[in-house]
Amino acid sequence: MLVRLVYASRASRELSPQDLQDILRRSRDHNPAEGITGLLWYNDGVFIQVLEGGRDPVNARYKRIVMDNRHDAPILLTYQEISERRYAGWSMGQVNLHRLNPGLLLKYGETQKLDPYRMSGAMLTALFDELVSSGAIECA
Amino acid sequence: MLVRLVYASRASRELSPQDLQDILRRSRDHNPAEGITGLLWYNDGVFIQVLEGGRDPVNARYKRIVMDNRHDAPILLTYQEISERRYAGWSMGQVNLHRLNPGLLLKYGETQKLDPYRMSGAMLTALFDELVSSGAIECA
Amino acid sequence: MLVRLVYASRASRELSPQDLQDILRRSRDHNPAEGITGLLWYNDGVFIQVLEGGRDPVNARYKRIVMDNRHDAPILLTYQEISERRYAGWSMGQVNLHRLNPGLLLKYGETQKLDPYRMSGAMLTALFDELVSSGAIECA
Amino acid sequence: MLVRLVYASRASRELSPQDLQDILRRSRDHNPAEGITGLLWYNDGVFIQVLEGGRDPVNARYKRIVMDNRHDAPILLTYQEISERRYAGWSMGQVNLHRLNPGLLLKYGETQKLDPYRMSGAMLTALFDELVSSGAIECA
Amino acid sequence: MLVRLVYASRASRELSPQDLQDILRRSRDHNPAEGITGLLWYNDGVFIQVLEGGRDPVNARYKRIVMDNRHDAPILLTYQEISERRYAGWSMGQVNLHRLNPGLLLKYGETQKLDPYRMSGAMLTALFDELVSSGAIECA
Amino acid sequence: MLVRLVYASRASRELSPQDLQDILRRSRDHNPAEGITGLLWYNDGVFIQVLEGGRDPVNARYKRIVMDNRHDAPILLTYQEISERRYAGWSMGQVNLHRLNPGLLLKYGETQKLDPYRMSGAMLTALFDELVSSGAIECA
Amino acid sequence: MLVRLVYASRASRELSPQDLQDILRRSRDHNPAEGITGLLWYNDGVFIQVLEGGRDPVNARYKRIVMDNRHDAPILLTYQEISERRYAGWSMGQVNLHRLNPGLLLKYGETQKLDPYRMSGAMLTALFDELVSSGAIECA
Amino acid sequence: MLVRLVYASRASRELSPQDLQDILRRSRDHNPAEGITGLLWYNDGVFIQVLEGGRDPVNARYKRIVMDNRHDAPILLTYQEISERRYAGWSMGQVNLHRLNPGLLLKYGETQKLDPYRMSGAMLTALFDELVSSGAIECA
Amino acid sequence: MLVRLVYASRASRELSPQDLQDILRRSRDHNPAEGITGLLWYNDGVFIQVLEGGRDPVNARYKRIVMDNRHDAPILLTYQEISERRYAGWSMGQVNLHRLNPGLLLKYGETQKLDPYRMSGAMLTALFDELVSSGAIECA
Amino acid sequence: MLVRLVYASRASRELSPQDLQDILRRSRDHNPAEGITGLLWYNDGVFIQVLEGGRDPVNARYKRIVMDNRHDAPILLTYQEISERRYAGWSMGQVNLHRLNPGLLLKYGETQKLDPYRMSGAMLTALFDELVSSGAIECA
Ligand SMILES: Cc1cc2nc3c(=O)[nH]c(=O)nc-3n(C[C@H](O)[C@H](O)[C@H](O)COP(=O)(O)O)c2cc1C
Ligand SMILES: Cc1cc2nc3c(=O)[nH]c(=O)nc-3n(C[C@H](O)[C@H](O)[C@H](O)COP(=O)(O)O)c2cc1C
Ligand SMILES: Cc1cc2nc3c(=O)[nH]c(=O)nc-3n(C[C@H](O)[C@H](O)[C@H](O)COP(=O)(O)O)c2cc1C
Ligand SMILES: Cc1cc2nc3c(=O)[nH]c(=O)nc-3n(C[C@H](O)[C@H](O)[C@H](O)COP(=O)(O)O)c2cc1C
Ligand SMILES: Cc1cc2nc3c(=O)[nH]c(=O)nc-3n(C[C@H](O)[C@H](O)[C@H](O)COP(=O)(O)O)c2cc1C
Ligand SMILES: Cc1cc2nc3c(=O)[nH]c(=O)nc-3n(C[C@H](O)[C@H](O)[C@H](O)COP(=O)(O)O)c2cc1C
Ligand SMILES: Cc1cc2nc3c(=O)[nH]c(=O)nc-3n(C[C@H](O)[C@H](O)[C@H](O)COP(=O)(O)O)c2cc1C
Ligand SMILES: Cc1cc2nc3c(=O)[nH]c(=O)nc-3n(C[C@H](O)[C@H](O)[C@H](O)COP(=O)(O)O)c2cc1C
Ligand SMILES: Cc1cc2nc3c(=O)[nH]c(=O)nc-3n(C[C@H](O)[C@H](O)[C@H](O)COP(=O)(O)O)c2cc1C
Ligand SMILES: Cc1cc2nc3c(=O)[nH]c(=O)nc-3n(C[C@H](O)[C@H](O)[C@H](O)COP(=O)(O)O)c2cc1C
Repeated sequence: MLVRLVYASRASRELSPQDLQDILRRSRDHNPAEGITGLLWYNDGVFIQVLEGGRDPVNARYKRIVMDNRHDAPILLTYQEISERRYAGWSMGQVNLHRLNPGLLLKYGETQKLDPYRMSGAMLTALFDELVSSGAIECA
Repeated sequence: MLVRLVYASRASRELSPQDLQDILRRSRDHNPAEGITGLLWYNDGVFIQVLEGGRDPVNARYKRIVMDNRHDAPILLTYQEISERRYAGWSMGQVNLHRLNPGLLLKYGETQKLDPYRMSGAMLTALFDELVSSGAIECA
Repeated sequence: MLVRLVYASRASRELSPQDLQDILRRSRDHNPAEGITGLLWYNDGVFIQVLEGGRDPVNARYKRIVMDNRHDAPILLTYQEISERRYAGWSMGQVNLHRLNPGLLLKYGETQKLDPYRMSGAMLTALFDELVSSGAIECA
Repeated sequence: MLVRLVYASRASRELSPQDLQDILRRSRDHNPAEGITGLLWYNDGVFIQVLEGGRDPVNARYKRIVMDNRHDAPILLTYQEISERRYAGWSMGQVNLHRLNPGLLLKYGETQKLDPYRMSGAMLTALFDELVSSGAIECA
Repeated sequence: MLVRLVYASRASRELSPQDLQDILRRSRDHNPAEGITGLLWYNDGVFIQVLEGGRDPVNARYKRIVMDNRHDAPILLTYQEISERRYAGWSMGQVNLHRLNPGLLLKYGETQKLDPYRMSGAMLTALFDELVSSGAIECA
Repeated sequence: MLVRLVYASRASRELSPQDLQDILRRSRDHNPAEGITGLLWYNDGVFIQVLEGGRDPVNARYKRIVMDNRHDAPILLTYQEISERRYAGWSMGQVNLHRLNPGLLLKYGETQKLDPYRMSGAMLTALFDELVSSGAIECA
Repeated sequence: MLVRLVYASRASRELSPQDLQDILRRSRDHNPAEGITGLLWYNDGVFIQVLEGGRDPVNARYKRIVMDNRHDAPILLTYQEISERRYAGWSMGQVNLHRLNPGLLLKYGETQKLDPYRMSGAMLTALFDELVSSGAIECA
Repeated sequence: MLVRLVYASRASRELSPQDLQDILRRSRDHNPAEGITGLLWYNDGVFIQVLEGGRDPVNARYKRIVMDNRHDAPILLTYQEISERRYAGWSMGQVNLHRLNPGLLLKYGETQKLDPYRMSGAMLTALFDELVSSGAIECA
Repeated sequence: MLVRLVYASRASRELSPQDLQDILRRSRDHNPAEGITGLLWYNDGVFIQVLEGGRDPVNARYKRIVMDNRHDAPILLTYQEISERRYAGWSMGQVNLHRLNPGLLLKYGETQKLDPYRMSGAMLTALFDELVSSGAIECA
Repeated sequence: MLVRLVYASRASRELSPQDLQDILRRSRDHNPAEGITGLLWYNDGVFIQVLEGGRDPVNARYKRIVMDNRHDAPILLTYQEISERRYAGWSMGQVNLHRLNPGLLLKYGETQKLDPYRMSGAMLTALFDELVSSGAIECA
């Protein structure tokens, strides 16, 4: 059974680019062996992550991530059984904020600043689809 | 929660181009801070305006606009919770009447003169969609 | 409220091209002021006419037309409240029979001769849509 | 081909109960031979009538009724090809206003007084369906 | 054109039962003449009101209500063109809080205390439908 | 925003009835204050739990539950934004296994023994709906 | 493959009750062996018959019936592949005209006299369904 | 009323090309006057024919064809009331077997040899649509 | 994953009631341990069997059954992944032919004798549903 | 009746390219005469095969294949009555693993290694459709 899980969380402290690279490197080390793929967004102290893969490994990894003290207050945004992955090409793709069309956040949010805690799962899914199709994801 | 609100009103007196520019300038000053976007149509003493944004700021602004004595008899045409904005690119776009195909008004109305008080919200929405797609909106 | 009305009738006597031009000229004089648009087909002693516009003026004009003794036995084919006109560009367009693909009538009718008294309103609507899209309507 | 036609009109002068009985008697004399069935509403100077039957006889009769000078300004409310009648049991049923639940008019109208000139055909159809199902029709 | 408008607001000060009766009495005086019907909920400093009727009178009344300083921060919850009223029987019905099943609020809300500012229009509509069908509305 | 979350897990050791009562008592102490409602199933070393409530408190509580060492390997079965709760009446209802029709498990599972790790979220939801409607839930 | 075939025809001469009994007796002799079931209507010189069964035997029998000189001008009304019969209980049921509600014909036809040559297959199907459900079919 | 009728039959004896030309010539002589259009397939002793036109002439012609002793065992494949013809351009088009893609028969049939007696009407319709769109029909 | 498999076969020789009881007894011995449930029909030398359960055990058992020389020419009628069983109550229910309404077979078949080799899977499914709901299944 | 059957199995021993060619050669010898078409996948000890054709020959061939001791534990993945074949062009096409995009397996599976025993029939169907459309099938 394949699933897709999307959550948001708040960084527990200011993250340097180096800190973020650490998380991504670690993810790209672990995920292929577990058949996990996905995307990671980080900006202004907020993470949004998509995890896809078998139901058991995604849950096991999510449990680890939830306990990671580099962030707090994770909230699930969506979780579904899926029949095919959407991000099969990324062991953990990174959203490149410099490639973002600035109007895109306003299209889905109440202000120019993304606040996943005020958005429904469906709206975040629509935003992520536009990120992928507009080429804003970096492979490694 | 994002909403879209469309209303019509009657100017309480003849408006000069200058008067209209004042309203638009004011709107473009206020709206970005409140995350509000939209369109304004003015012709022959009739206003039609679309306001998009967070539910609270749109309602607060609409309350101010309703009390503005430059127009009377505002009537709501449509009001909906939306999952994405349609006019995210305009802090307050202006419909340029010189770019209008004259047959367009006849397509949706009983005569060549637009009378929003006799039209349903759905027909006005269709008309506004044609305005945008035919390039009749001015940015600033 | 916008409506579209389609009817058919039989000319009460043989019509000359001049007679037909009189009807069209009269229609193009009256209809713009009343916000009425439409099409007129005449062939072999049969009229089919589409009238679009506000509900009241279309009914008022139809009452006059029904009483016109140049034709008899008018039958309504369709009548609907519509949200947009289909023939907004013609104050009264004329179907040019020389531009008709001869197979078109057979496509919708039992024989090559159009007999609206044996056809449903839906089939006549489909035929008229093909007339417009194949450029068989003359503007004036 | 069966059709159902609904129209409204304004009595050209105050009608006495006797006048109304004359119209109904005449209708019940003519309609059976032509296969026409339907309902008639009269109140406060406004008629609403439903006519069902073959397409030709309904149109022929409607042409006569439109020219009757006991009323003016008839407007078609709906006209459809139908696959079965709804009022097959009444050669011309009369709406008994004393059996009307007074709230019924408010349910579909803007005020307690029925004004068909401001109502869509669909709303009038819904109102007539409630009249039949609440037993407000008199047989003869 | 009939519309239904639902809004919520916060009382600007503590309201006594007498204050509430004043608002209701006033509403029942005005609304019948304007063809307005609806419901009013008041509890814990929060109003929720449904207004149904013609588009023009509902908008005119809503403009007055918005400017009433007995409450602040009105937000529209839903606004629709409707083909029939749902509350035709109440010139302004009052929700009787003593007849409320206490679990009802939890069914639609995040806690036992109703907070319309955190609820979508659709959820409030569902709640109001249950209020009516469970007999929690008082007539006068 | 209301959500419903369903997960399964394996007890890390044999649980006595007393152990289970401890979990339930604790749940019924905490959940009302957080607006959380739901059901708990325990049998043969397997837990299945439904949690309903506001998105933030459900996620916060789920994070605590996942870290509880009385069980391991929690897997999310379903997670959805909902517009109304299904179990508003239970701060934490307990499935009474003695009231279970023994054929019920076979209806949805491959064998008579429930193994949520081999079942889709949709099938578990259907099973839980039958539990509620067949009266197999104990209130406290 | 099961099919259902409905046709109408005109008796070539006046039929006595005896003539009709002959046709029915013959049908009830032949049809069971071929797995054919159905209904026969006769009135005023018009036959309507429904034949159900395997595609080959129904076609073979229909070919014989078409060539029977007791009737002329057979026209197919409907013909469909079906997944179950509707008249499995009648080797050839007869419509008993004395049990017919006289309004039934008017409900589907333009006049009180059934004329299948002017009716669509769908309307005749609806009429036959009412015949069966109103108990107007005789078994033998 | 327009109908489309498709049937299959078996040639009662080996047909020469000349025999087939006779049938086609005869068809092209008769059909235009009756407003009939269609297609004829002949191969390996099997005919499949589509006839379109008014309900009465199609039935009259089909009765003649069924009685023609050049073929036996005709079975109806489909018969429908249609709102437009599909083969309006052919008084009787002939399927040119040399233009057939040999895989086409396998796509719809159990073997490479077309056996309409084992195929449903819907599959034959799909096959004929591919014949037309792949240009395998000869005009005369 | 649960599946439902339906097949038909021909008994390779005349079966005595004793032979049939042997098959059923054997089935009821094996099936519970493998979580298999279903129905068996036997009449006139034809078997039809429904098998429900986990995908692996159903396939394993079907492989054994196919090789059983008490029958030949098994053909699969339907095979689906299901979300719930329909025959959870029968380890292998037997269709009691004496409780069968004789018209039932005619309803779905071309003749009174059931020939699954000429029926689609969907029609057999409909027949089996009627068998269950009409109480024609014996438990053991 | 056409059907499509998909199954998976495990090779009972390591297969050499020669062994595989034997199976394919044998298939291409037998299948055309029986009207069977399809695809065969072999990798890492796992077979997946699609068989299309008449219901009887596909079942007869599948019975033979199931008993072939070059593989074990065949499980049906899907089986359907179809109205047209998808692989009419291949008497038995072979999936060329060297032409496979390596990400394709991850898109539908939990890991990079295809395990049909853990996948639903629908997901395997989607994977095979991508194989065909990406040109990964070899003809002979
Ligand atoms: C926002 C965020 C996202 C993370 N994503 C992943 C991930 O996709 N894969 C992963 O293995 N670790 C991820 N981690 C790191 C995990 O929290 C944890 O450190 C890691 O799974 C530890 O794995 P290990 O103990 O097995 O080495 C993430 C951490 C954070 C803060
Ligand atoms: C037709 C019309 C449209 C208006 N639109 C806007 C608007 O989009 N945004 C805005 O800030 N003010 C708009 N205004 C002006 C407001 O009515 C009001 O003057 C303004 O909100 C005052 O804001 P302030 O008191 O906060 O400066 C509009 C006025 C009119 C007459
Ligand atoms: C077939 C037919 C179509 C007509 N169409 C129109 C029309 O579209 N508009 C119009 O004004 N008159 C039309 N007429 C003419 C009217 O019947 C009538 O002569 C005219 O409305 C008279 O208008 P007046 O008395 O206001 O001048 C038509 C007449 C015929 C016979
Ligand atoms: C509101 C109204 C409704 C009428 N309905 C009918 C009717 O249903 N049938 C009818 O024959 N006449 C009806 N009439 C009367 C006709 O207008 C007209 O007088 C009648 O058809 C004359 O028929 P005759 O000239 O054939 O006698 C109605 C008249 C009015 C004012
Ligand atoms: C929550 C609330 C609801 C109200 N509802 C109504 C109402 O339904 N109808 C009404 O006439 N006035 C209502 N009012 C009172 C209006 O705000 C206002 O006082 C009234 O329309 C004044 O009308 P008048 O100036 O025409 O007398 C309401 C006031 C409040 C605070
Ligand atoms: C299967 C299971 C279900 C539980 N469900 C709940 C629950 O619904 N609510 C709750 O407060 N604690 C629940 N708990 C207990 C929590 O894991 C944890 O002990 C508790 O939330 C501690 O809360 P506290 O530290 O705030 O006292 C559950 C534990 C288990 C093992
Ligand atoms: C209106 C009509 C309906 C008939 N229906 C049937 C029928 O259902 N079955 C039948 O066997 N014959 C029916 N017949 C009789 C056939 O036309 C024909 O006489 C009969 O099939 C001769 O069969 P035989 O030559 O095999 O004896 C019908 C005849 C008519 C005129
Ligand atoms: C397979 C087949 C198809 C035929 N198609 C037609 C046709 O489309 N039109 C036609 O008039 N005759 C067609 N015929 C010939 C008729 O069976 C019959 O000979 C012809 O309608 C005689 O018409 P007539 O007696 O009016 O001259 C066809 C014959 C066969 C065997
Ligand atoms: C028509 C038919 C249906 C059968 N159904 C079952 C069945 O449902 N379960 C079963 O175990 N055996 C069934 N059998 C018997 C099997 O073919 C086979 O004899 C049995 O599975 C042998 O099992 P064993 O070798 O494991 O004892 C059936 C046999 C026939 C002929
Ligand atoms: C994975 C697999 C797929 C096969 N596919 C086919 C096939 O498509 N057609 C075929 O005739 N034999 C196929 N075979 C071979 C059959 O199992 C069997 O050997 C063959 O049908 C024997 O046929 P025969 O005894 O009629 O010669 C396949 C074998 C295997 C192991």
